[in-house]
Amino acid sequence: MSAALEETPISYEDLADIEREFDDAETEIIRQQVALTAPLYSRRTKTVSQIPNFWPLVLEQAPPDIDQYIQPSDSALLLSSLLSFSVDHFEINPNKSKNSAFGDPRSVSIRFEFSQNEYFENAVLEKKFWYRRSRDGWSGLVSEPIRIQWKKDRDLTGGLLDMVCNVWDVEQRSSNGTDATQRELTLEQKSLKKTIENTGMGGLSFFAWFGFIGRKVSAEESAEAIAKDVEIRKNRKANKASPPESIDGDADEGEEDLDMSLEIFPDGDELAIAFTEDLWPSAIKYFTQAQEQDAISDADFESDEGEPDDFNDPPQDSADSDDDEIDARPTKKQRAA
Amino acid sequence: MSAALEETPISYEDLADIEREFDDAETEIIRQQVALTAPLYSRRTKTVSQIPNFWPLVLEQAPPDIDQYIQPSDSALLLSSLLSFSVDHFEINPNKSKNSAFGDPRSVSIRFEFSQNEYFENAVLEKKFWYRRSRDGWSGLVSEPIRIQWKKDRDLTGGLLDMVCNVWDVEQRSSNGTDATQRELTLEQKSLKKTIENTGMGGLSFFAWFGFIGRKVSAEESAEAIAKDVEIRKNRKANKASPPESIDGDADEGEEDLDMSLEIFPDGDELAIAFTEDLWPSAIKYFTQAQEQDAISDADFESDEGEPDDFNDPPQDSADSDDDEIDARPTKKQRAA
Repeated sequence: MSAALEETPISYEDLADIEREFDDAETEIIRQQVALTAPLYSRRTKTVSQIPNFWPLVLEQAPPDIDQYIQPSDSALLLSSLLSFSVDHFEINPNKSKNSAFGDPRSVSIRFEFSQNEYFENAVLEKKFWYRRSRDGWSGLVSEPIRIQWKKDRDLTGGLLDMVCNVWDVEQRSSNGTDATQRELTLEQKSLKKTIENTGMGGLSFFAWFGFIGRKVSAEESAEAIAKDVEIRKNRKANKASPPESIDGDADEGEEDLDMSLEIFPDGDELAIAFTEDLWPSAIKYFTQAQEQDAISDADFESDEGEPDDFNDPPQDSADSDDDEIDARPTKKQRAA
Repeated sequence: MSAALEETPISYEDLADIEREFDDAETEIIRQQVALTAPLYSRRTKTVSQIPNFWPLVLEQAPPDIDQYIQPSDSALLLSSLLSFSVDHFEINPNKSKNSAFGDPRSVSIRFEFSQNEYFENAVLEKKFWYRRSRDGWSGLVSEPIRIQWKKDRDLTGGLLDMVCNVWDVEQRSSNGTDATQRELTLEQKSLKKTIENTGMGGLSFFAWFGFIGRKVSAEESAEAIAKDVEIRKNRKANKASPPESIDGDADEGEEDLDMSLEIFPDGDELAIAFTEDLWPSAIKYFTQAQEQDAISDADFESDEGEPDDFNDPPQDSADSDDDEIDARPTKKQRAA
C-alpha cells in the first residue's frame, strides 16, 4: 500500500496545492465567521457579565482536551478568583490592528481576568498566539512567555515559568531575537533544560501554559515564507520551474530541537486552539450543562428520558418547560443517565 | 454553585436566545463554506480518483471518533472494496434540491461506492441525514435505514439491519409515518427489541450504522417547530407573551423512549458528523499521514525531528523536500516518535 502515488500521474505537490487552497478557503471562512459573530459575542459578554461565577462554572465543564491540563490547585484558584475569560482574533480586529484587513484570522489573544487571590498579583493574564509559516514549510501558532508575579511560596509552576521568562529576556536582549549561529546554551538555558529533565512534568500546573513559546518564527520570516509559497504555487500552476529553495535546513533543524527541549508546555498551541474553537464559542452550552446537572442532582429529578424498561411508566410532567428551549443537546452519556 | 441564575436578571431564555443566534450564524457560515469549497472539492475528487486505494487508505487513518466503530471484518471489506467516499450537503445543493436557497446546510448525504465483493451486492450505499427541529425543542440529525443486499451467510450485522428495515417498512405502510397513539409494539418491533436486548452490541459491525434512524421528526413537524420558535423569539424580543405551547409532551416522550430502545446504532448521528466535519474535509491530510508513516517504516528512515539528545548529530539530508511542502503538521505523538 505504500508509495501509493508511484504509479499515478499525481504528485505530493498536487495534493499539497489542493490542501493549501482548502487552507486559504478555511482562513477566509474564519475571517467571515469572526465578522459575523462579533456582535453576538458582544451581546453574550454583556449578558454573562451579570452572572456571577459564569466562567469558573464553564471551565469546570471543560472537555478533556482542556480539562486534562488543569490540576486540582489550578482548579481551586480558577473557581475562586476567575472573573472573566475572552478570546480575541486580534490580527483582524480593527480596534487592535492597523492592518486588520491583512492579518491572519487564526492568530488569537486569550485573556483571563482575576480577582485578588493568594497566588499572584496579576489582575490580568493575557497570552497572544501568532499564526506563522516557517521557511521549512511548517505553519502553526507561536507565542511568547508571560510572566506571572507569584506571591511568596505560591508559585504553582515550581519556578519553571520564571526560568522560561528569564531565558526569553536574555535572548531578547542579546540578539534582537534568535541567533542562528548560537549553539552553546546560555547559563539560563542550561538551568532550564536541567530543571525540565529533572521535573516530573505529569502534574505540571496549567499556569505553565503561559510559558509556551513553540517554534521561533518571526513575523518577517513568516511574511517571506508566505510570499515565496505563493510564488511557488503560481509557478506550479503555470508549469514553470521555481528557483531552488535555499536549504537553511541545518540551522533550522538544530534550532527546532533546541526550542522543543526547552519547551515546558509542548501542547500549548493545541490548548490555545481548544480554548478558541471549543470553550469560547460553546461557553453557554457548558454553563447550561452545569446547571442541568446541578438541577438533576439537587432535585433528585428522575430523568424523563426513560430507560427502555420504564417506557410504560407515566411520563413525569416537566413544569420547567424553559429548559426545553435551550438548544444544548445533552451528550449521549447524559441522556442515558 | 447551582441555580446560578436565581439572583440575576438573566433567565435561561436569555441564554437560549443568544445560543440560537450563534446557531443561526453557524448555519450561515456552513452555507458560505459549502459554497466556497465546492470547486475545491470537485478538483480534489478529480485528482484523488486517479489514486488507487485513496479512500481505503484515508479510512485506515481515521481518528478514534470514526475508527472506534470499525470492526476488523468491516476493515477488511473496506480496504479491499471501497472505491469512493463522498459527503454532499444535498439540501443546499442546487443540483439536488429545488429549494436549495432555503435548505438546511447541516443536512448531509454520505455515500460509499464499492467494487464487487463477497459480502453484499450493492455497488452504492448512500445514507441521508436531515437536520430537524422537534416540537419539544430538540434539534439534530435524523435518518432512515438503508437496506443492504447481503450475500448468503455474509450479513455482518447478524440480521439486525434487516430487522430494522423490516420494522421501518411496516411503519411506512401502516400509517404514512408514526402513529402517535400506537403504544403496542408490532411483531417486527418486538422481535427487534428482543434481539437488541440479547445481542452484545460491543462488537457491532460498522454497517449497522446504515440502520440508524434517530428521533422520528418529519419535515412538516420541523418546519412548524422552526416557525413557532422564530415567533417566540420575536415576541420575547418585543417583550410580548407567547401563546402557551401545546404540551403534546406525553405522546412525544413515550415515542422517544420507544425510538431509542429500537435503535441499533445510537451514535449514528455523531458518526455522520465525524464523517462530515473531519474525514471528508481532512482526507488529504490523513492520506499523507499514511504515506509518511509508510515511508518512515519502509526506508528505516531516521526522523529528522530529532530527540533532544540527538540535536548534536549531523542532520540527515532530506532528499525528498517535497514532503516539507505538505501542510499536514504531524501530531505531537508523531513528532516524538
